[in-house]
Amino acid sequence: MEGVDLNGKVEAGAVEELGGPTNPMVSPLLTDLYQFTMAYAYWKAGKHLDRAVFDLFFRKNPFGGEYTVFGGLEECIRLIANFKLKDEEISYLRSVMPTCEDGFFDYLREIDCSNVEVYAISEGSVVFPKVPLMRIEGPVAVVQLLETPFVNLVNYASLVTTNAARHRFVAGKSKTLLEFGLRRAQGPDGGISASRYCYMGGFDATSNVAAGKLFGIPLRGTHSHAFVSSFMCLDEITDKALRSQDGSRTCEDFVGLVQSWLHKLQLADSLSGFFGETNQSELAAFISYALALPHNFLALVDTYDVMRSGVPNFCAVALALNDLGYKASGIRLDSGDLAYLSIQARKFFCMVEKEFGAPGFGKMLVTASNDLNEETIDALNKQGHEVDAFGIGTYLVTCYAQAALGCVFKLVEINNQPRIKLSEDITKVSIPRKKQCFRLYGKEGYALVDIMIGEDEIPPKVGERILCRNPFNESKRAYVAPQRVEELLKCYWPGDSHKPREVLPSLSEMRGLCMQHLDQMRPDHMRRLNPTPYKVSVSAKLYDFIHFLWLSEAPVGELL
Amino acid sequence: MEGVDLNGKVEAGAVEELGGPTNPMVSPLLTDLYQFTMAYAYWKAGKHLDRAVFDLFFRKNPFGGEYTVFGGLEECIRLIANFKLKDEEISYLRSVMPTCEDGFFDYLREIDCSNVEVYAISEGSVVFPKVPLMRIEGPVAVVQLLETPFVNLVNYASLVTTNAARHRFVAGKSKTLLEFGLRRAQGPDGGISASRYCYMGGFDATSNVAAGKLFGIPLRGTHSHAFVSSFMCLDEITDKALRSQDGSRTCEDFVGLVQSWLHKLQLADSLSGFFGETNQSELAAFISYALALPHNFLALVDTYDVMRSGVPNFCAVALALNDLGYKASGIRLDSGDLAYLSIQARKFFCMVEKEFGAPGFGKMLVTASNDLNEETIDALNKQGHEVDAFGIGTYLVTCYAQAALGCVFKLVEINNQPRIKLSEDITKVSIPRKKQCFRLYGKEGYALVDIMIGEDEIPPKVGERILCRNPFNESKRAYVAPQRVEELLKCYWPGDSHKPREVLPSLSEMRGLCMQHLDQMRPDHMRRLNPTPYKVSVSAKLYDFIHFLWLSEAPVGELL
Repeated sequence: MEGVDLNGKVEAGAVEELGGPTNPMVSPLLTDLYQFTMAYAYWKAGKHLDRAVFDLFFRKNPFGGEYTVFGGLEECIRLIANFKLKDEEISYLRSVMPTCEDGFFDYLREIDCSNVEVYAISEGSVVFPKVPLMRIEGPVAVVQLLETPFVNLVNYASLVTTNAARHRFVAGKSKTLLEFGLRRAQGPDGGISASRYCYMGGFDATSNVAAGKLFGIPLRGTHSHAFVSSFMCLDEITDKALRSQDGSRTCEDFVGLVQSWLHKLQLADSLSGFFGETNQSELAAFISYALALPHNFLALVDTYDVMRSGVPNFCAVALALNDLGYKASGIRLDSGDLAYLSIQARKFFCMVEKEFGAPGFGKMLVTASNDLNEETIDALNKQGHEVDAFGIGTYLVTCYAQAALGCVFKLVEINNQPRIKLSEDITKVSIPRKKQCFRLYGKEGYALVDIMIGEDEIPPKVGERILCRNPFNESKRAYVAPQRVEELLKCYWPGDSHKPREVLPSLSEMRGLCMQHLDQMRPDHMRRLNPTPYKVSVSAKLYDFIHFLWLSEAPVGELL
Repeated sequence: MEGVDLNGKVEAGAVEELGGPTNPMVSPLLTDLYQFTMAYAYWKAGKHLDRAVFDLFFRKNPFGGEYTVFGGLEECIRLIANFKLKDEEISYLRSVMPTCEDGFFDYLREIDCSNVEVYAISEGSVVFPKVPLMRIEGPVAVVQLLETPFVNLVNYASLVTTNAARHRFVAGKSKTLLEFGLRRAQGPDGGISASRYCYMGGFDATSNVAAGKLFGIPLRGTHSHAFVSSFMCLDEITDKALRSQDGSRTCEDFVGLVQSWLHKLQLADSLSGFFGETNQSELAAFISYALALPHNFLALVDTYDVMRSGVPNFCAVALALNDLGYKASGIRLDSGDLAYLSIQARKFFCMVEKEFGAPGFGKMLVTASNDLNEETIDALNKQGHEVDAFGIGTYLVTCYAQAALGCVFKLVEINNQPRIKLSEDITKVSIPRKKQCFRLYGKEGYALVDIMIGEDEIPPKVGERILCRNPFNESKRAYVAPQRVEELLKCYWPGDSHKPREVLPSLSEMRGLCMQHLDQMRPDHMRRLNPTPYKVSVSAKLYDFIHFLWLSEAPVGELL
């Protein structure tokens, strides 16, 4: 790639084409009106070019956990790379702000992000409260316009990536996780974003075709209950022929072959107690599906009765396919007691393997998919189950357990003057100044603590002790001698600073980074119940500065 | 409007241009992969043209309530009006379904919705569980492709409209409701859809500029804490002149005028106990904002201290504006005890009115906006408060209290054969057959009951008794003699049936319908605590039919 150097950075001045946001509805107008009224007030006061530094951060990890995964950066960078108000947008603004002077709209017409700098933590990283995910510096009027879309783009992306990572954690690394949430997501790009960020957070595939096409995410899917219900009886199947997998022969009556297998299953001693007559419309549906997609036969077995109809019907079709050299994929359970049914189905498959010598039949894939979430998967694990793959929808993509992350965008410096946002609620006090941020790692490779220091301070060094202080609690402090120091904020948009810019990684690279970061977390930070909070700290100098500024800004009454 | 007759229907054959979906990402690929694999299996079995009828409905009202508002219909109609797979989309499908025959992709290339019929309840209507919001009829393969996008488009739209209606109900009709949720919404069109559907559900305005432009929703917004923090002192204000409202004179030193008013406030006997020195950077911010937007001065007063700084500073600026013929709008409170602070601020305004004879000053608008939801507004109402307008974000737009509505899409008939989806969970059993649906009204104008009947049954008539039966509980039944009968399902997409098509109403018409429907609900269905369930019923004939079909479909073991 031209203009990209060996360290994965775009050289200063090099042109790397950055397309616009994935959703064409993301534009400079996707912001709150007050960003424009403030821009006007700044412009009128001659303050619009004042150089401001804002931090984008969150205050509390979601889902009762102690970690968050950062998502949404790429979309923010795509927005600013293409940030330009169109004439019709300016006309609209003029109509809603009729008392503003013409000169202001001329100014808006000129605005772009060529003099905005964005430093950010890499997308897919594990991140923590108070540490800026992004530091945005530029003319105050322009940077304010970015507040709403940036927070919008980061909030849900980070929330749903974190939710996916939590589902992966509880399911374990060996299970297949499928995102099935499109129909229940909060709107079209709620669905598309969910597929993208769940993949980043550790899912294996999605059912969402649009997301598969946009982002190259693997797709998965078979059939629904309606497909089963749409068949009446076996007579409906007119073309009964199926060519064998190797193409060497054709079975002219696949329906008859399935029926003969069903009969054998019914007669087998070990299976005879399980079922009698199976549902014939279900059998017709399974056969039709297998005739169409013999390479990939996975059947939904709970339309009528899982063990008395669905599983035996599936096995008859799978054994017939086996005769022709095809290997059936497995079943999907979408209702009932998933622990019990998966175990019963597994037993049935193992008995079929034993009874008929069908190799590997006992390892048939069992997918479960009924209103699953962290709690239900955890409960299934505790009960014991035979599920290989989980299809997860509603609770995953809508982040049902906590539907919003509270990212904020706070002014920390203007014209080199530090600013602090005070609040009676100490968790809402912002950390002033343009800052550098580092993650310090210990001997075993685990992350120990994040530390924020002033822009002019000397970064922590490997093997050297540094005092890490809780920003708001005087008594909480510790010396740390890191084995590894990672600088968190990297230059993703240099503005006119002529610094090299980080290349935006691919989705699978971000997924890899996320998996790596999660592995570097000490297990007690990750557990579902009472996880240990990860420490976020400031340097001694920054600590003193915060408290000096706090005193100088607080109303006189509060000092007493 | 050409081709539109006087009853608000588009004549059969008339061409009314219907644009595509609002979000360009909504395409025929915005569906689950299994809809395509099923389409292939239908096609291979020669069943793809089988005429199927699906109902789109939900099973349970959200938020613990007993009503739902239907949203999302227009977007569904826009999707089918433009439903056509592009070549590159077909190429992508070919790559993910490599074993499918070429003829299938030729078939996909031809698909459109010209032979699909959609009957639906009007958007903005109050709706109830089990009653189809939409009835979709057409070739089974095509209608299945519509399942996922239709459910996606209806689920969140209906959920957030209902949430907005519930917030309106608790706030009361006299309050102004502002949707401020863009930054916390689940993605860009989560935010845009929220603005649109919250307006439909009874909100008055949004902060979201993109939504304002797209849908003509009124916009509102003033300034943020960062604006206040960005000012240091009064010296920053260089252009201090302000022309009077009538243009007759110019105040050359508006800063001085404000300072003199602040001094008068400090000296006033009735106010002197309230405050001492106010924050000067806040005052500078207020003055700058007023100089820019003197017609629309609304100040955020809680950056430092509401009663000791924000409100007095606001009053000084408002009184100075008053001298020049401008009327300040009011204040916004974004933290603290909103009940107490709004009452204190109101007292202060009333004292200012009395002390300085500023007419109407006591009625200054108070807006509140900190993490509000149904519960907090209800609690404010119980405590007593002086808030005139509520700005509501996170809890409203993410539907935090319940982040998903469970709309489903069930096959009820194929090739004129009724289909039923059985389940051990009785609430999940679907109501078979192509149906007509009516709402029956009583003497006082309230809706009494919804009734579903078979397609071939005679509709209920005004004044004639009809037996309304609970579909699944034999003992629950009642005769009703309606004073008014409303047919619920109307033809929104006639396919090739040549029936006239309903015109899609404007957003404000839908908003009006929603308000009207909510007014026609008996108050006990609407209350927040223990609302009475609204009755949904079937005719005696449909009741018998459901139970006949149920017995014939159930596995033999269940009959014993």
